[in-house]
Amino acid sequence: MKVIINTPDNRKVIDVSSGENLIDIIRSAGINIDAPCNGFGTCGKCKVKLVNGKVKEKKNSHKLSNQNKDSKYILACSSTIIEPVEIDVPKESILDVTNIKIEKNNTEHYEKYYNIKKTFESKHSTKKHLEILELQLDIPNIDDNISDVTRIKKFITRELKNKNIEIGIALLRKIPSVLRENEFKIAIIYTVDKGIIKLLDIRSQGNLNIYGVAIDIGTTSVSACLVNLKDDSILSEVSCANAQSKYGADVINRIIYSTKGNGLNKLKEAMVSESINPLIIELCLLNSISKDDILIFTASANTTMSHLLLEVYADYLRKEPYIPVFADTKDIAVTSEDMGLNINKNAIVIISPSVASYVGGDISAGVIASDMRESEKNTILIDLGTNGEIVFGNKDFLMTCACSAGPAFEGGEISCGMRAAHGAIEAVTIDQLSYIPNLDIIGSYRPYGICGSGIIDLISELKRVNLIDPKGKFRKDSHSNRVKFDEYGIGYFIVAFKKEYGTDEDICITEIDIDNFIRAKAAVYSATYVLLSSLGLDFDQVDEIKVAGGIGSHINIKSAINIGLFPDIDVEKYHFIGNSSLTGSYMSLINKNAKDYIDNTAENMTYLELSVYPGYMDEFISASFIPHTNIKRFPSHK
Amino acid sequence: MKVIINTPDNRKVIDVSSGENLIDIIRSAGINIDAPCNGFGTCGKCKVKLVNGKVKEKKNSHKLSNQNKDSKYILACSSTIIEPVEIDVPKESILDVTNIKIEKNNTEHYEKYYNIKKTFESKHSTKKHLEILELQLDIPNIDDNISDVTRIKKFITRELKNKNIEIGIALLRKIPSVLRENEFKIAIIYTVDKGIIKLLDIRSQGNLNIYGVAIDIGTTSVSACLVNLKDDSILSEVSCANAQSKYGADVINRIIYSTKGNGLNKLKEAMVSESINPLIIELCLLNSISKDDILIFTASANTTMSHLLLEVYADYLRKEPYIPVFADTKDIAVTSEDMGLNINKNAIVIISPSVASYVGGDISAGVIASDMRESEKNTILIDLGTNGEIVFGNKDFLMTCACSAGPAFEGGEISCGMRAAHGAIEAVTIDQLSYIPNLDIIGSYRPYGICGSGIIDLISELKRVNLIDPKGKFRKDSHSNRVKFDEYGIGYFIVAFKKEYGTDEDICITEIDIDNFIRAKAAVYSATYVLLSSLGLDFDQVDEIKVAGGIGSHINIKSAINIGLFPDIDVEKYHFIGNSSLTGSYMSLINKNAKDYIDNTAENMTYLELSVYPGYMDEFISASFIPHTNIKRFPSHK
Repeated sequence: MKVIINTPDNRKVIDVSSGENLIDIIRSAGINIDAPCNGFGTCGKCKVKLVNGKVKEKKNSHKLSNQNKDSKYILACSSTIIEPVEIDVPKESILDVTNIKIEKNNTEHYEKYYNIKKTFESKHSTKKHLEILELQLDIPNIDDNISDVTRIKKFITRELKNKNIEIGIALLRKIPSVLRENEFKIAIIYTVDKGIIKLLDIRSQGNLNIYGVAIDIGTTSVSACLVNLKDDSILSEVSCANAQSKYGADVINRIIYSTKGNGLNKLKEAMVSESINPLIIELCLLNSISKDDILIFTASANTTMSHLLLEVYADYLRKEPYIPVFADTKDIAVTSEDMGLNINKNAIVIISPSVASYVGGDISAGVIASDMRESEKNTILIDLGTNGEIVFGNKDFLMTCACSAGPAFEGGEISCGMRAAHGAIEAVTIDQLSYIPNLDIIGSYRPYGICGSGIIDLISELKRVNLIDPKGKFRKDSHSNRVKFDEYGIGYFIVAFKKEYGTDEDICITEIDIDNFIRAKAAVYSATYVLLSSLGLDFDQVDEIKVAGGIGSHINIKSAINIGLFPDIDVEKYHFIGNSSLTGSYMSLINKNAKDYIDNTAENMTYLELSVYPGYMDEFISASFIPHTNIKRFPSHK
Repeated sequence: MKVIINTPDNRKVIDVSSGENLIDIIRSAGINIDAPCNGFGTCGKCKVKLVNGKVKEKKNSHKLSNQNKDSKYILACSSTIIEPVEIDVPKESILDVTNIKIEKNNTEHYEKYYNIKKTFESKHSTKKHLEILELQLDIPNIDDNISDVTRIKKFITRELKNKNIEIGIALLRKIPSVLRENEFKIAIIYTVDKGIIKLLDIRSQGNLNIYGVAIDIGTTSVSACLVNLKDDSILSEVSCANAQSKYGADVINRIIYSTKGNGLNKLKEAMVSESINPLIIELCLLNSISKDDILIFTASANTTMSHLLLEVYADYLRKEPYIPVFADTKDIAVTSEDMGLNINKNAIVIISPSVASYVGGDISAGVIASDMRESEKNTILIDLGTNGEIVFGNKDFLMTCACSAGPAFEGGEISCGMRAAHGAIEAVTIDQLSYIPNLDIIGSYRPYGICGSGIIDLISELKRVNLIDPKGKFRKDSHSNRVKFDEYGIGYFIVAFKKEYGTDEDICITEIDIDNFIRAKAAVYSATYVLLSSLGLDFDQVDEIKVAGGIGSHINIKSAINIGLFPDIDVEKYHFIGNSSLTGSYMSLINKNAKDYIDNTAENMTYLELSVYPGYMDEFISASFIPHTNIKRFPSHK
């Protein structure tokens, strides 16, 4: 039978069999339907409108409002086809994974990378990955008829006093034409690895365009820098959603999806073909360079993303005792061709080493951006993302743990949540008397939703003006026309009336959203607390807190302390270090010593497995209030 | 417009445009039409019958008899489509490239390999490529939660005292399930290369099926052995036509084809997907083994075949100064996956090193089978194939050269020629009085054609009974009813009347065939002569002649001397060593020292480029008689 699927841009007719699940049908039609919970019926994001026909619904979902139900909305994941139907997939149910965001190409934005580079290189020397050797080979004749490869080797060995040379098949195929087009006057680009000269490229002399791509693969977003390897300058930075998001918002849902059918391959393809390669193409286009001139690729990612990037079975990451297939990446031989990357086939591929199943290469790489291994000061590094990772230490030791924050910090599993993109409310204050919120919206007058930093502000402000109690429930006795309760008695606050901003619907935050957020912030706070207390320390002994992660730099620290996300210490001790994972990738790309430093960081970090740590669950529950059940921990809280 | 193509088994209707070449259309229909000359209209093998419609013919080809023309036969390569046509492609115009020949699985046949092994290993020690290490890893728990790879590495390093380990991506993907299915009790199969432990496979303990495939890639035929690496025993030997033959019979035609469009890829695919992989599958089926248990692949081939195997541009091989892209293969990193081989993705790939553009890995490998590097005796190795290669030397030196014999020794470019397969006439004697030939036919009473050894006998006998003169022309005054002349005055001899054997047509040898064969034998003889005379030596100083190559072992040495193919020295000095290239591949497969020996052989062979050697052309012309213009060189000739 037929299913007709209308999207805002398109109409597709699909042949299906009775009993098929609607979300699978929509996905098979190539539509990136949003499903953070990966089809478990718990997030309510995959709603579609039934235009004709009917479906068998799994259950009467609480995720749909009565208004939605009256308008014939259903959840695709909970619907089974029993007869031909026609559905509309609304814009908000489609995950925009192709929208690439280009960072403004200004010196200021890149200054933070250069500062890290300067600091690192002042303490450690610089060792480049790539070397260039210009050679004028003898032109062959009937008496000097050695092969092209032997001829190249002869000259390299003469120059470098090393006979161990390796030439990959892709480069081998290129050799005869390059030699002859340039009358045997050529430049060789190579790297030395474990004493072996690995030839990466062969070119005409003078053509020394050598680039690298440094990348951070987050669960939700992927960011990439194009670097000119001649002077280490960053040419552009771009980012986009991780296209895997359509298969689940967090690593657990992704791992579950990866174990079904050819899910593992689909996840790898979504990451490589729909996220990483489009970013690389964008970087090439922006700078008019050839992908073949990209000779190094460095990626930092959490352990799950690293596994999925290499299409390695990841299910044991989520099952006790939480064992990664690989952590250290030094011994893994992988080529850019194996990975399907749209760069030079001989490019060097570097994947930052993980520490454990939930502390990944993004953290090992991120430590380099925190400078904490060089410091006498007791420093906490908090990386806020879909997972929250915390590192504590100084030049003498490093200790780390991780917690599952879920996608709340990136706007996920929040009804009005969104990424920090155009139209996102990123900062909020609420007037104490009128309860009217004052909104900072990214690049727009009209809001589409709220991103992580906006939610932190909003919850902090709702608490401050006393509209919610410490459990995050709306006070029934409030006098605000913005506080409402739905038919199930669930309270919500209207952040933006549709009539105020001309939006399609009111933008609201519900008690369920606040509850989701409280769980996220409680996870991070209690993890940080337990990490220190496992060493017999308290926040008093902390000299600095470095906050990393996509949303990090937009957070109002005071708001974050007020809701009990961050410890209540002097705000002057907090520093934002931006995307430390991407910074680490950049450092690894431009300096072999930085790569070794990151490897060494991973090896020397002690991992604390919170899930089995006695007392962690109690701490988590105590932290599941605003700001905390133990108010003494938050002395500055009014 | 439509072209209907009928084959003995099938009927295909193809859409074509006016002006398309018929041979291209037939090829695009997936029919392996025979075209040794690769469509230059010179071999006459691609004849098809025009059933309906007409084509534009390039020229009135002498390659078609009047009888053929009357029966509406045309040459596909010389025909252009101008209107819809229907053609029949007769069986004899179709190259049978899928017909795999299985050597009888008997000890006697494999004894020659074991003898070489015994001889070699008595002088050089044995060093296996593969090592097996059984490990009982600790089972991970929450306090011992290092990654799978780190765990494996820890145990390997402990056992082998080496920290340099390399794991490929395909193996990495296999690790988590194998560890857990075997409760962390596993066997590791590895090789040590340049000080690095390369992991090839990970398995349950006790499952130690390890196999290798040794292969000889000839221009015309491909032969392969399956070897049990536990005891170096040969399990089966199979061979088939090199499917590249449809694109040309000799290396020059193949190289020309490879430079056009995606010809290079087509040739590589024909070799790998249509010849090598089917042989491997056959070997697996015959022995009920899994392709994943094939962990080493060694190939020996001429330089052109080695280039095409790796899809490397080969055009400079045929252009002065005849430079290969690669000769030595030590520095080339190529995986079985890169090559598309149907074996374990981590298998070791070894390609025997070439010496020069026309002395390939088949010769470097073949020398090991001749034992000449170990001998005081002056030895000539003659490898008879589509190219003829000659090596001369002893334990102190090796000198080599090559000549283009063309496919005549393998039955190519001979009107009644065929490979030494079922139905081939392999030996002939002719009665001096009656001129009736007595035929030895391979595995059949009814002959289909004549293979190389049969042609040598036949020409020798025709000369002996005085039916042909020293130029290979039939004497007009002979009294044999088997000698005829066609409408162009070209003489031929009926080897088998159709009424005698119940064949479809008479089997004949023509003056053109004899002329082709004389050129082949003259090339080999004069190359051998020049190689020795370049050192100031003559055949008197030769102690042994080792004859290798597919047809080698069936040759009647006396006949070969009589026609002037081989030097006229004591027949006792001649020894057949069979397929020395395959023997070399086998040795390289089972013993690392043999691989090194072959590399060393290639490095130490001095190559003589005949095409520019003064006097070679004169020698060739002098040798273009039966047996030679200088009859003193053949004292035993009557």
